[in-house]
Amino acid sequence: MIPTKGYAVQDAKTDLAPWNFERREVGPHDVQFDIQFCGVCHSDLHQIKDDWGGAIYPMVPGHEIVGKVVKVGTHVKKFKVGDLAGTGCLVDSCRTCDNCKEGLEQFCSNGSTGTYNALGQDGKTPTYGGYSNTIVVHEDFVLHVSDKLNLAAVAPLLCAGITTYSPLRHWKVGKGHKLAVLGLGGLGHMAVKFGVSFGAEVTVLSTSPEKEADAKKLGAHKFIVTKDEEQLKSVTGYFDFILDTVSAPHDLNLYLSLLGVNGVHICVGAPPTPYQIHAFSLIGGRKSLAGSLIGGLPETQEMLDYCAEHHIVSDIEMIDIKNVHQAYDRMMKGDVRYRFVIDMASL
Amino acid sequence: MIPTKGYAVQDAKTDLAPWNFERREVGPHDVQFDIQFCGVCHSDLHQIKDDWGGAIYPMVPGHEIVGKVVKVGTHVKKFKVGDLAGTGCLVDSCRTCDNCKEGLEQFCSNGSTGTYNALGQDGKTPTYGGYSNTIVVHEDFVLHVSDKLNLAAVAPLLCAGITTYSPLRHWKVGKGHKLAVLGLGGLGHMAVKFGVSFGAEVTVLSTSPEKEADAKKLGAHKFIVTKDEEQLKSVTGYFDFILDTVSAPHDLNLYLSLLGVNGVHICVGAPPTPYQIHAFSLIGGRKSLAGSLIGGLPETQEMLDYCAEHHIVSDIEMIDIKNVHQAYDRMMKGDVRYRFVIDMASL
Repeated sequence: MIPTKGYAVQDAKTDLAPWNFERREVGPHDVQFDIQFCGVCHSDLHQIKDDWGGAIYPMVPGHEIVGKVVKVGTHVKKFKVGDLAGTGCLVDSCRTCDNCKEGLEQFCSNGSTGTYNALGQDGKTPTYGGYSNTIVVHEDFVLHVSDKLNLAAVAPLLCAGITTYSPLRHWKVGKGHKLAVLGLGGLGHMAVKFGVSFGAEVTVLSTSPEKEADAKKLGAHKFIVTKDEEQLKSVTGYFDFILDTVSAPHDLNLYLSLLGVNGVHICVGAPPTPYQIHAFSLIGGRKSLAGSLIGGLPETQEMLDYCAEHHIVSDIEMIDIKNVHQAYDRMMKGDVRYRFVIDMASL
Repeated sequence: MIPTKGYAVQDAKTDLAPWNFERREVGPHDVQFDIQFCGVCHSDLHQIKDDWGGAIYPMVPGHEIVGKVVKVGTHVKKFKVGDLAGTGCLVDSCRTCDNCKEGLEQFCSNGSTGTYNALGQDGKTPTYGGYSNTIVVHEDFVLHVSDKLNLAAVAPLLCAGITTYSPLRHWKVGKGHKLAVLGLGGLGHMAVKFGVSFGAEVTVLSTSPEKEADAKKLGAHKFIVTKDEEQLKSVTGYFDFILDTVSAPHDLNLYLSLLGVNGVHICVGAPPTPYQIHAFSLIGGRKSLAGSLIGGLPETQEMLDYCAEHHIVSDIEMIDIKNVHQAYDRMMKGDVRYRFVIDMASL
């Protein structure tokens, strides 16, 4: 077993604190890489607090993981020692169901294995995430990372990046489309970058007027303050797509009214309470409300390659791991532009 | 003006009763046709009772109208006296907006004109529907009806038919798809016929076990009693599409769980209370919840032509107009197989 240092919570009520644990030995198809950077996702906080139930403690969070390969299994062909590598939200799946075969491992019919707060495919071995110094992952769930990009700023691509890239690709958002991005946080700022890169006209819908300059700097063409009724009214029936990154409760009927005929509202956030949808909000314009969940492994690699080619990374604030709870506090207030990344050298 | 006999309600509290009124003279682009049959739609009852607000009285309901042309305007080219003709839910629209130009008059940006309980494009002349002996409609909103089909059974195609045909076509439902039809009423039985005709595997989801034989007779391949948990469980993640014809409140999260990855749940009914949708019901499988509203004029004609070619009509029970309130009572209990049609000779 491989001795590993990390930060863990022992239950829902205590803070993250240093914790030593063991990773499995590198098997024939495994890749071990030392973690240099790990992004901080909203869902890390939800999970350590057991907001969604079923938490497995001790819990080492973190699923935006990048670093350098230090060991590969005897059968590994895709990686060699010294390569840059990344792992996102998944470390395994059944690989045999139709969804896995199509590269949609996030929808594995038999249940994919999350990078942390999950059990392995054996149904009993807990997984531990990226707030740690090293990780062992089956090569099929390890991604190639370009050395052309700022490695720390690549980390958030593994969750915030793929979560926004995937639906924009699936719904073929691009030139000639009017895309609204609802919420300008970790996910939203990536959605703006991808939307602009794909050729769409991008409008940021935000409650915070002070984010306008940033939105424009990120490439957004328009900015609408959603608290301003006049501004909202000016975009009634205007958009082809809304990418909704908001995980607080909000009135979707209002946003559905901003879509034109055949418009699609895509949710990638998950508010704690159900959406209340009036049937006429959808019927009156053949509109759709859709959801999207991260992305499969092939698409995640495609996204990373696209980012390398188009020089797209996340806007980040680097932190030491001992300050992660301060970072959570700021994240909950929306006070981060736009993703915290832990420098794992600080461990 | 053209003296017209019909049945109207004078306010939300009184029953339908004979009422004489006037239709406009036949203008250069108008077609006048004598009404032989008019289907009875759930929405007739909702509107005479002002369930949706904004009712315009006196109100002559009816928007599943077929009959024979008796007069055409000087500029009319598409119809001649003696032709069979039909009119559905719309009698006019702005004809200039993008949606109208695309043949999506039901989504006219300036507001289409309903066949009854609406105002004409002049914003002041009320429209009166098909519970009457004759009607005058602009030729663009009059449809050709084949003489190969039972005319009375064609009437419901103008609303129940197009309402189910249109979404199945829009989402390209056909061979290789697993389609569930939720609710086996006026809309549902047409959805089954079209789904089967388009080559999909069709499953009826119904609360009424006694409808199984009928469902199979209509061509459905499977029948699931939605109150039976075991039966429901057997189709978890099974369907590509659900066409939801139910206008009573129901739990969509349950039905969304029956969809596979990328599945689409299409609502054509409009329950009085909002749907409660858990974000994870959509996100966990990249699912969509969509709405669809009747169909535009070109597609309605396409549907009628398709029905003529494939010998598809509605299953109907013919009634005299004096029995329409009894028919409403039975309709509300789901006791109609599957659409009441008024024989206008009984007027």
